[in-house]
Amino acid sequence: MAEGRKFKVAVVGATGAVGEVMLAILAERKFPVSEVVPLASERSAGGTVKFGNRDLTVRNLDTYDFAGTDFGFFSAGSSVSKVHGPRAAAAGCVVVDNTSQFRYDADIPLVVSEVNPHQIPNRPRGIIANPNCSTMQMLVALAPIHRAVGIERINVATYQSVSGAGRSGLEELGRQTAAMLNFKDPSPKKFPVQIAFNLIPHIDDFQDNGYTKEEMKVVWETRKILEDESIQVNPTAVRVPVFFGHSEAVHIETREKISAERVRELLSNAPGVVVVDERKPGGYPTPVTHAAGKDPVFVGRIREDISHPRGISLWVVADNIRKGAALNAIQIGELLAKERGG
Amino acid sequence: MAEGRKFKVAVVGATGAVGEVMLAILAERKFPVSEVVPLASERSAGGTVKFGNRDLTVRNLDTYDFAGTDFGFFSAGSSVSKVHGPRAAAAGCVVVDNTSQFRYDADIPLVVSEVNPHQIPNRPRGIIANPNCSTMQMLVALAPIHRAVGIERINVATYQSVSGAGRSGLEELGRQTAAMLNFKDPSPKKFPVQIAFNLIPHIDDFQDNGYTKEEMKVVWETRKILEDESIQVNPTAVRVPVFFGHSEAVHIETREKISAERVRELLSNAPGVVVVDERKPGGYPTPVTHAAGKDPVFVGRIREDISHPRGISLWVVADNIRKGAALNAIQIGELLAKERGG
Repeated sequence: MAEGRKFKVAVVGATGAVGEVMLAILAERKFPVSEVVPLASERSAGGTVKFGNRDLTVRNLDTYDFAGTDFGFFSAGSSVSKVHGPRAAAAGCVVVDNTSQFRYDADIPLVVSEVNPHQIPNRPRGIIANPNCSTMQMLVALAPIHRAVGIERINVATYQSVSGAGRSGLEELGRQTAAMLNFKDPSPKKFPVQIAFNLIPHIDDFQDNGYTKEEMKVVWETRKILEDESIQVNPTAVRVPVFFGHSEAVHIETREKISAERVRELLSNAPGVVVVDERKPGGYPTPVTHAAGKDPVFVGRIREDISHPRGISLWVVADNIRKGAALNAIQIGELLAKERGG
Repeated sequence: MAEGRKFKVAVVGATGAVGEVMLAILAERKFPVSEVVPLASERSAGGTVKFGNRDLTVRNLDTYDFAGTDFGFFSAGSSVSKVHGPRAAAAGCVVVDNTSQFRYDADIPLVVSEVNPHQIPNRPRGIIANPNCSTMQMLVALAPIHRAVGIERINVATYQSVSGAGRSGLEELGRQTAAMLNFKDPSPKKFPVQIAFNLIPHIDDFQDNGYTKEEMKVVWETRKILEDESIQVNPTAVRVPVFFGHSEAVHIETREKISAERVRELLSNAPGVVVVDERKPGGYPTPVTHAAGKDPVFVGRIREDISHPRGISLWVVADNIRKGAALNAIQIGELLAKERGG
């Protein structure tokens, strides 16, 4: 892209856990930028953030005029996107939104860059939504299987790291762990109960059907992204005391029978996927050994489900802040840049 | 039982994580003992262990004569049970074995005290096996449902604490966590990769079908304990950085449709089960807030599976060292004592 156009890019929520990584990835991947504008609330404005080796001054989102800004990467919470996303889009800035604010609107494309990039041009409102981190990594792994043999049903149990709850989630796990090792009380602030050396089967609000909103996001987003309303999904979403990287025990039922060997082959050739699947100690991905700080979605423990004639089980691990959020948003940005001759 | 007979009881593996809790539970529950003999390898013999307020001297298993000992609770590894279990049984001591050594033998009953106590008398070899911790807690929760409407299939993802790997598992999580907070290298010793702030989707050896032995134990033991070879089970077993308490995301498919409300009612009246199921922050069991150090199996997140017409999802948490191992063994012992007029 070095020869093409360059773009003025805004990062909204630049001081947050995802925003910081967005800036790092824009630099790492040499996104064709003419200017990078980090934006945040008035409280954070005036501070600096890193973009490559440079320090950029954070500007106040409330008073920023998006006219002339090509792309805006939003990751500052739904309420911020609700107000400032449409304002940016009205000024001609294409918005790539990492929150759930617009994901379920029929006229907003919801895009995983490896799965449904063809939806990017269908953006009448000038806004493209980035999926939930759990859905994202699961679909990078499952889309090739769905294309090959069709997926009827997904049973998924997640193991989600605290970074999914933002910087305060990371701080809480660190603070509580240190407190406990010093025999002090790990009083919960960010999470409803202690997360250090514990598990919390509750992410986002409870819905009337007994699922949490985090779980229902996986259901809604899977159908929208795979463009198949018939797929049945049954998620249990659990927060675990891991800093970076979400993991998922995924059990699928396919329309046609597929062997574990064929799945391994399909995924070995799939974009954005790395298969780590040796049946020996360490021969599978884990958040620390494979995913944290890395781009791909790692898949292991691929096996034919002994409980179902057309079942496959897999273990899917990815950095929830990178592929699960920042990276996919920037990858969408790259496709937008290409569309405009970048 | 205070009026009845008293029994001479041996605890094999008395210095281990499970043996220590067995001794504590024998005291807590006022098991009708005339004498308690803690046994261990020659290396540990001569040390002391706690039984209530008393210190007992650990004796050498290799040279111990089981004649006159009524019940032997074994939790010192399969190889120890293999040699000394039959030796104790031959001397007239009823063996309750916590290892997997005899679990799958047709002439060895495999008993969860709330689920199939009627199997206790069928012990031609004088040995009764205690199930795997993951199977144990799952079946305490599922047996009432199986009895009511039949269970056809179980998809289960486990979140297993390090205490399941014994005292060295506890030490490794503590040591690695402290090392990491001090920016030191958390070199793995007990587990194949780092467990602090990480997950390991691998417990026990890999089998030819791609499942681990820990996973296959759940399959084999579920069928044997529920006395139903038709039940299909698909487990994924994962070690998590939690000290005490195993958790399970359980997704079942029943023969007849059952509502979440009816499941809640059944389990509220089931022996050994406590339902914690409010759809609000903290309204579900977690290892730290509910299970660690407690006897019951805690069940929450009960909901009708939106992906299946006869599906139910649940979240099951229990102390793997207590109900998952030591407590169930002692509960079997209590039934044996009752059989003999204790």
